Amino acid sequence: MESSNPKVITCKVAVVWKEGEMIKIEEIQVDPPKSNEVRIKMLFASLCHTTFSLPMLIPILYFLEFLDMKELGRKIFFLCFILSKITCMSQSGRIGICSKIESVGENVTNLKEGDIVMPLYLGECKECPNCKSGRSNQCHKYPLNLSGLMLDGTSRMSIHGGQVLYQICSCTTWSEYTVINANYVIKVDPQKIPLQHASLLCCGFTTGYGATWREVHVEMGSTVAVLGLGVVGLGGKGEVFGMTDFINPKESRTSVSEMIKDVTEGLGVDYVFECTGIPSMLNEAIEASKLGIGTIVVIGVGHELTREFNLVSLLCGRTLKGSVYGGIRLHSDLPALLHRCANK
Amino acid sequence: MESSNPKVITCKVAVVWKEGEMIKIEEIQVDPPKSNEVRIKMLFASLCHTTFSLPMLIPILYFLEFLDMKELGRKIFFLCFILSKITCMSQSGRIGICSKIESVGENVTNLKEGDIVMPLYLGECKECPNCKSGRSNQCHKYPLNLSGLMLDGTSRMSIHGGQVLYQICSCTTWSEYTVINANYVIKVDPQKIPLQHASLLCCGFTTGYGATWREVHVEMGSTVAVLGLGVVGLGGKGEVFGMTDFINPKESRTSVSEMIKDVTEGLGVDYVFECTGIPSMLNEAIEASKLGIGTIVVIGVGHELTREFNLVSLLCGRTLKGSVYGGIRLHSDLPALLHRCANK
Repeated sequence: MESSNPKVITCKVAVVWKEGEMIKIEEIQVDPPKSNEVRIKMLFASLCHTTFSLPMLIPILYFLEFLDMKELGRKIFFLCFILSKITCMSQSGRIGICSKIESVGENVTNLKEGDIVMPLYLGECKECPNCKSGRSNQCHKYPLNLSGLMLDGTSRMSIHGGQVLYQICSCTTWSEYTVINANYVIKVDPQKIPLQHASLLCCGFTTGYGATWREVHVEMGSTVAVLGLGVVGLGGKGEVFGMTDFINPKESRTSVSEMIKDVTEGLGVDYVFECTGIPSMLNEAIEASKLGIGTIVVIGVGHELTREFNLVSLLCGRTLKGSVYGGIRLHSDLPALLHRCANK
Repeated sequence: MESSNPKVITCKVAVVWKEGEMIKIEEIQVDPPKSNEVRIKMLFASLCHTTFSLPMLIPILYFLEFLDMKELGRKIFFLCFILSKITCMSQSGRIGICSKIESVGENVTNLKEGDIVMPLYLGECKECPNCKSGRSNQCHKYPLNLSGLMLDGTSRMSIHGGQVLYQICSCTTWSEYTVINANYVIKVDPQKIPLQHASLLCCGFTTGYGATWREVHVEMGSTVAVLGLGVVGLGGKGEVFGMTDFINPKESRTSVSEMIKDVTEGLGVDYVFECTGIPSMLNEAIEASKLGIGTIVVIGVGHELTREFNLVSLLCGRTLKGSVYGGIRLHSDLPALLHRCANK
């Protein structure tokens, strides 16, 4: 049942018109939500390092200045968005956020106007083979959607009286308002967890945390290296154990893998969490893991869409495991994580 | 104890003097074995497809003609060797073989002159962390050795009165005689298994078979694709189940991954065994595996030493597992496999 009779909203959004160009603040039209969708208003956003390795390479100061603009009505804690190159034209980005439901489509029954939610880029139908298997967060019905459009192949955003705007990863968040399929959001209770903290769980932190919780079983006594200590990397670290060594690659001319071997008696580590998204770091991660048994969890992304590695090093018994959002399932896992954070 | 007083042997060998050049039959000197080594005489060799994708690109007919030469005293069944580019100068290749011990070093106690053995490119000390873990065939003490030299950093082969010759993967086999560390061989009983069959287990077949036995646990009902039906691919296939579909990529302009999806209701398969070693096939293998849960066992090698893949496809919950010799341990696993083959 519709809680109101939603109209088209005109609001401000940040648009990237061309790869390599600065974002531009535009006034656009956001359509009402269709049957299984909700329209949300942004409240809080989070930020991670990936933001600054994207093709448009937005200077951080400019970016923060934009995001502090009062008319956008949001506050910054950390900002995290990913995979920006996928739809590099006319796109509006993806950020970890908390938001408030402004209106709901006619078939949305579990959410209502005014609910506080976190939107994600992966849904969970609980009915497809992957959801039923319990082994994956890659839902077939509500997948990671890189088309720039809604699941029905259309857009809810337009500009200049009808020009379609593309979004990224299921929902644009560089906008005052956006529309998202209702399966891709979960409710958050602002009485239990501050929203600026909750927004961190929408991408970066949860990705790292989940990688050590859902993707691999890190045995007691294992050695672990985390490449990249942004929000993702720190999320990965928190779960494993207190870190013992910190390596700043800028302080040495030795490679990262050699430095990791130096502190592990030449063996490398059992697990590497690659959180930087820097292409050359994939091979460093492989080399830094133990011969014969090392596992590399690949988490980080950047604007390069391919990765190259040394075949022989992988062949020698190493495993590369790819992970989106740390394997966390939106409805089955994330509420428990929110609960843990609410209870410190 | 030395069983004799071995002298330098002058014999024929096939040498690759320069990348891209034909092999050349040369007379060389093979030194006696040092303390923990054995000198072996080639009897039977096996062959696999990888042989013909190597940088020197030996025409198959020329190759077979060479190997049939009576003075080399061996017969061909299949010939398998790998990783030839690693030491491309002055190298003599690596072939799956059965051979006879001609002499032993002074500290070799478990082998004697006249024993029939299979030499391998991976040893097993049973004492290092990897051997003790039971999870890997990548022994730290007797590793995959791509230096072209013996473990002590010297060579047992020379030509032109002292010029060092390099070998590949622990022991040259394109030679009438060669020297190898005694840990890298196992005894074969020619009364129980024909040596031309046993030689198949020295590389190709065992690599594929082991990949499905030691590297992954293929659950009942899983879907499996094997890319490349040479000896390795057929070894992988034998263990899994009877194949249901055969795809010849030359018969279609569709990609291999699309063809595999066509016969799996668009889902792809649970496991892909990449046995071709063709660089572009790695990405096809990733795309052909199931979103969220697919595992790709990377087995095949060729002359390209790096591989490139689409990051997003891996990130979406897929796993790449590298494997040398299918994870088979020379002393702990191979005797059981020989026994199975001897008993059909």
